[in-house]
Amino acid sequence: MSIEIKTGSVEAQPIENPSLKYLKIQGDFILENGKKLSEVVIAYHTFGQLNAKRDNVVWVCHALTANANPIQWWPGLIGQKDVINPQKYFIVCANIIGSCYGSTGPKNFNPETGERYLRSFPAITIKDMVKAHRLLLAHLEIDQIHLGVGGSMGGQQIVEWAVQEPKLFKHIALIASSAKSSPWGVAIRSAQRMAIEADPSFYSSSPKGGWKGLEAARAMAMVSYRTDKIYNISQVDQANFESASDAESYQRYQGEKLRNRFDARTYYTLSQAMDFHDVGKGYKSISEALERIDARALIIGIEEDLLFSKEEQVELAENIKKSELHFIKSDYGHDGFLVEAKTITGLLANFLNKHR
Amino acid sequence: MSIEIKTGSVEAQPIENPSLKYLKIQGDFILENGKKLSEVVIAYHTFGQLNAKRDNVVWVCHALTANANPIQWWPGLIGQKDVINPQKYFIVCANIIGSCYGSTGPKNFNPETGERYLRSFPAITIKDMVKAHRLLLAHLEIDQIHLGVGGSMGGQQIVEWAVQEPKLFKHIALIASSAKSSPWGVAIRSAQRMAIEADPSFYSSSPKGGWKGLEAARAMAMVSYRTDKIYNISQVDQANFESASDAESYQRYQGEKLRNRFDARTYYTLSQAMDFHDVGKGYKSISEALERIDARALIIGIEEDLLFSKEEQVELAENIKKSELHFIKSDYGHDGFLVEAKTITGLLANFLNKHR
Repeated sequence: MSIEIKTGSVEAQPIENPSLKYLKIQGDFILENGKKLSEVVIAYHTFGQLNAKRDNVVWVCHALTANANPIQWWPGLIGQKDVINPQKYFIVCANIIGSCYGSTGPKNFNPETGERYLRSFPAITIKDMVKAHRLLLAHLEIDQIHLGVGGSMGGQQIVEWAVQEPKLFKHIALIASSAKSSPWGVAIRSAQRMAIEADPSFYSSSPKGGWKGLEAARAMAMVSYRTDKIYNISQVDQANFESASDAESYQRYQGEKLRNRFDARTYYTLSQAMDFHDVGKGYKSISEALERIDARALIIGIEEDLLFSKEEQVELAENIKKSELHFIKSDYGHDGFLVEAKTITGLLANFLNKHR
Repeated sequence: MSIEIKTGSVEAQPIENPSLKYLKIQGDFILENGKKLSEVVIAYHTFGQLNAKRDNVVWVCHALTANANPIQWWPGLIGQKDVINPQKYFIVCANIIGSCYGSTGPKNFNPETGERYLRSFPAITIKDMVKAHRLLLAHLEIDQIHLGVGGSMGGQQIVEWAVQEPKLFKHIALIASSAKSSPWGVAIRSAQRMAIEADPSFYSSSPKGGWKGLEAARAMAMVSYRTDKIYNISQVDQANFESASDAESYQRYQGEKLRNRFDARTYYTLSQAMDFHDVGKGYKSISEALERIDARALIIGIEEDLLFSKEEQVELAENIKKSELHFIKSDYGHDGFLVEAKTITGLLANFLNKHR
């Protein structure tokens, strides 16, 4: 692979209204499955300033439907008043390839055909996302990351990356994440993809293609992200013959909200990427892969998480050499990785202070 | 409502290959929402013989996608070698109205239009199902039920019925069931209905209408019926770029299996019926309704059930006067109400012996 870096900068960004920066990769980007993408673009944000020693980098990896602006979606953990503070750290977050928030994905035009990729976009993996992160890292001339942090699929990218480059990270924080996607998670995402496939407009070239399927997929995902407790507390009123129940209205609202900001082909592609996740690929075992990691690791699990089990957190903690494991409680279940930012902040601040 | 009973008999059925019996209701069947159905048919099975005292009746209510033959779908609990034995009991099971296994439902022809109901079938409720059961009961000239038993939506029918007729049942057994459908359950079923709606053929008159949506809905339902443990044990192999994962193949297989034996409009109708369930309607509270029940009640919950919570089992047990509550363990989660028939048999046999 020949890579020629064309654009991109390390300038400080305004916190309130940052503009995306773009790194264009020239030459082919070879994917894990052997297929290639041309003219790949990586969209990213940076916040704060890289210090003289270039050792104050915090790299944030985002989850399935998020974007490259963690100040927007991870308040309480990342921001001017938070533990991951742009006054102290140089914070980098790249939109993952395959997404629709600036980096190359199914909504982009295929330079070879002049048409949007849509369903012709190749299968991508967490390893491919990490490959893009590594290109951006090289472009930014960073060779040490103080902290790599991610929740859910974001954590999957961090752990994959830390296995590939065991000495790059000084610290990693993996929240509600895993070393390998479980059959259970795959089953949940498969049902969502089946809902998208049931909507024939998914296969059309319409910008709204697959909208109704995506809405159903999101509603399905919501229950895996939350718990019975939070639905039973928040969505009390039952349906009668004139009006829908709170719970059904909420599900429909969540479906519409996602389809207004996302895209069905993108969702499908990223959903599959998550299924392929396995840090043990190329190693004898997951243990052998995780044992490579030299970073100090903070593993945070959520007791009530229906999507990522306790066992998966224990597997990470038991096999990463320098690790500590904490479980937090959250009625929000898996979504606790976002909602419980204050609790996570406490654990993270303590962890970082301990190893200064 | 004027009801003229036209057919139906109380003859003994062969166990191995029973044939459905039909009760045709003449006159209007007024539904809970005020709409009416004409020429309603109730399909049912009976096994065994009604004794001289007419006091050996076991009434079985089936769940969402089951039929009127519990010997087929509840082996280990109901059958010639089981605790609910046709040599001892006169066993009755009626296909619920709204279903597609013989009783009037969306696949039937609307006598007023000569067309199949499909999406024009009115909204029905658990109360409507119980109304049909009561008509069949009257037809069979039964005025005492020794045991009413049901799991999941079957249990919802039994508890609704026992509230309506507090002295009809000597015993009831409610397995993985509830007094009122939870917002959580509604949210899960709403996502499934959204998947069906995403398939535009659902609104067509094709017999295959909504098939792909139904497949997705079933795949979604499967994860709510099972647990992470059982998927992670049984569906180990991950996807690679050539072949699907075990978990995804299993989900697709389950979807296809249901659509081959069921119908999308029927599923949609019954899914909504379940959402309306609330024994407290017409009473001051759920407690007041449940306190009416005079039957001795065996409540069985499944520790790992993701769909029907422990709290829902406790609510039943705390409010039914003569009740006992047991929790069983099952890696199958909610489906444990079928899979763990042996354990349930033990509890039920003990319960029935205690109160002879």
